[in-house]
Amino acid sequence: MKMNNSPARGTRDLLPDAVANRDRVLGLIQDVYRRFGYQRIETPALERIERLTAGQGGDNEKLSFRILRRGLDEQLPAGTPVSDLVDMGLRYDLTVPLTRFYAQHRAELLAPFRSFQFGPVWRAERPQKDRYRQFYQCDIDLVGEPSVLAEAELIEATTAALAAVGLTGSTVRLSDRRFLAALATCAGVPAEAQPGFFVTVDKLDKIGWDGVIAELVGDRGLPADVASAARDKIDSLTGLPADKVADVLTEAVPGLQDQVADDLATIAACLAALDGVSWAFDPRLVRGMGYYTGQIFEITHPAAAGSIAGGGRYDELIGRSLGQQVPACGFSIGFERIVDLIEQQPEAAKVAVLYEADVPVADALAVARRLRDEQGVVVSSLRRSGKFSAQLTRLETAGFTGFLPLVPGQDISELPVPRPLGRQV
Amino acid sequence: MKMNNSPARGTRDLLPDAVANRDRVLGLIQDVYRRFGYQRIETPALERIERLTAGQGGDNEKLSFRILRRGLDEQLPAGTPVSDLVDMGLRYDLTVPLTRFYAQHRAELLAPFRSFQFGPVWRAERPQKDRYRQFYQCDIDLVGEPSVLAEAELIEATTAALAAVGLTGSTVRLSDRRFLAALATCAGVPAEAQPGFFVTVDKLDKIGWDGVIAELVGDRGLPADVASAARDKIDSLTGLPADKVADVLTEAVPGLQDQVADDLATIAACLAALDGVSWAFDPRLVRGMGYYTGQIFEITHPAAAGSIAGGGRYDELIGRSLGQQVPACGFSIGFERIVDLIEQQPEAAKVAVLYEADVPVADALAVARRLRDEQGVVVSSLRRSGKFSAQLTRLETAGFTGFLPLVPGQDISELPVPRPLGRQV
Repeated sequence: MKMNNSPARGTRDLLPDAVANRDRVLGLIQDVYRRFGYQRIETPALERIERLTAGQGGDNEKLSFRILRRGLDEQLPAGTPVSDLVDMGLRYDLTVPLTRFYAQHRAELLAPFRSFQFGPVWRAERPQKDRYRQFYQCDIDLVGEPSVLAEAELIEATTAALAAVGLTGSTVRLSDRRFLAALATCAGVPAEAQPGFFVTVDKLDKIGWDGVIAELVGDRGLPADVASAARDKIDSLTGLPADKVADVLTEAVPGLQDQVADDLATIAACLAALDGVSWAFDPRLVRGMGYYTGQIFEITHPAAAGSIAGGGRYDELIGRSLGQQVPACGFSIGFERIVDLIEQQPEAAKVAVLYEADVPVADALAVARRLRDEQGVVVSSLRRSGKFSAQLTRLETAGFTGFLPLVPGQDISELPVPRPLGRQV
Repeated sequence: MKMNNSPARGTRDLLPDAVANRDRVLGLIQDVYRRFGYQRIETPALERIERLTAGQGGDNEKLSFRILRRGLDEQLPAGTPVSDLVDMGLRYDLTVPLTRFYAQHRAELLAPFRSFQFGPVWRAERPQKDRYRQFYQCDIDLVGEPSVLAEAELIEATTAALAAVGLTGSTVRLSDRRFLAALATCAGVPAEAQPGFFVTVDKLDKIGWDGVIAELVGDRGLPADVASAARDKIDSLTGLPADKVADVLTEAVPGLQDQVADDLATIAACLAALDGVSWAFDPRLVRGMGYYTGQIFEITHPAAAGSIAGGGRYDELIGRSLGQQVPACGFSIGFERIVDLIEQQPEAAKVAVLYEADVPVADALAVARRLRDEQGVVVSSLRRSGKFSAQLTRLETAGFTGFLPLVPGQDISELPVPRPLGRQV
């Protein structure tokens, strides 16, 4: 009987070449982050269901995979609500677990705390091309740093990590939620309507201004002149020269706090010092999550549609776990997106010891061992096939660079020399 | 409001020092396996519930965490069986997913296929000290190799990996399921009673011969003389000199196939060639899983109670997925056990740039950048604290080896020299 051997719907297996490429990319990123002092932590895949439904994850909460309680009767009593059946779920991001982690372990961590996380998250999305129900996130977060040094350092570290994997020439798009709130107020959007206003403006890339205005007026009930005023204001502040942003915004948005302009001026000075990093203030940038409280940013790259990294400040999220506000800022690389942009590298030298059937196993292993130890190459032992040239072709396809035939009675006291693969034999 | 911030029951967070140690240990192990040609693959955490309940995982199947289907009505109809509510579960080991992976992707893999896996598995065990509901497994498997070369290479690679992380002086215990079956038959245990017989004998370490005999007779219904005969035979074959095993077994166990003795002789020759590896034939070794079909082995180490690695041949497991038999053999390191035995290493040089409040953020980041680039050290920027000597103590505790104070107006055109930490200042 043959079973259905495909991975569970919406998930995928990773084959050796894909894993090797992912590990290499991760290693390069992690090495950059490590040099900035970020330390990897790890939280479990499972979180209490209360935390996954506490309103910190926006729409992602609805996509949580939920875990059935253990020890249920095989037949459920009538009227059992589904919510009674679950006590845990799979994390849908790494930010919610980080806030819990920080609240739990704060006393053991240096302040400010530089966190690096890399791990799978799960979302019960409708499976579609290039969107999987299990995928990896790659986050750095600086927790406990109130100043814009956090934003500047996170942007520096992330652009450096992207450059390390070969993604140079990226552009940072930057805005500030406090600016957006002041802009909305100034255009006449009441405070209580602003969260919805931002959700709609966030769709600008996808549905354009016509779509956004239609939704603001039709679905959100904003007056048409308020929607138009917001559009005009946002358009007028798009494409500002980097060194003018702070001054122009102060002028153009009356209610803007001085701190917001100061922070933008500081970021401008910090980013100007980075080689090969270009950036732009972009008032159309909103970012989806409701928890952002200050600067927000994304990175785009010519080779990718959409953004390849995103983040921002979230000064009020940890307080919900800890009962005491702790400023925090984070930046997440879209690992699954970038790994597809990065070319796989050829592997190191790899030799196949091809032993004939009557060669003693201990001899085959001894030759492999000596090749490994004395020449530092990767060595695998395989039975020599009757269809030898087809076997060599398969080995070459699999990345082997050399082979070493071993016949019965062969003197192995002197280590035989492997022959290169990729030539006629 | 403060939430409950502890990790979900039975799981744990990993703090930076623990993760650094785990990553280092994993890196050393993986490097050894890579040199033997083992390639890392990855399967999703989620598997179809049918696969997790197909009888391939023994008692572990009962410990599967099950995932609630999506889109259920909030109120379930009366009499809904629990099994209707789930369609997936979390993997409880890495072997069952490997067999699915191999059956699915065989055409794309070199034969024989050398697989390395490292990843979390989940079991709904009653939480207790040092036993977690999420833990990591670290497996190598050689799929498609029928000869005992597989066993010999897996043992060589695993003992080399353990030596690489500092666990030298380990001992390999080895037996063979085919020998155990012949021994049981020879003692008078009928074939159909043998699986239960092995389950009970597997408890020998825990309950001793008195307990085993009581269970064989009382619970399994074996005649007392059969149980005693099995005990006497096993005892008489314990502690055989390595080079005599094959001959003694052939003599002592009449029904033993020649191939079993040949394989033991081959393994003896292979293991004798390995420096620093001692081994013993141990007829008391059974190993829990029902799927083993040939040689089985475990590794013990003076520093650890119980075994630190285990494995064996399972020639019939892949066939259940593929519908066609493929020989396979695997060895799993008890990663969570060994990582606790291995001392953490001191980190690389790590410098704190301590900037006073009025130092421009761009200057603080520029000094950190130059230190990082020019001296290759790990550098983090922190605001200088009013309680300076307490801050230095905290930094030293956190592994910093140097610090560099930065005051407003300081000339940073020449890179200041960091001061070592760990002295009076």
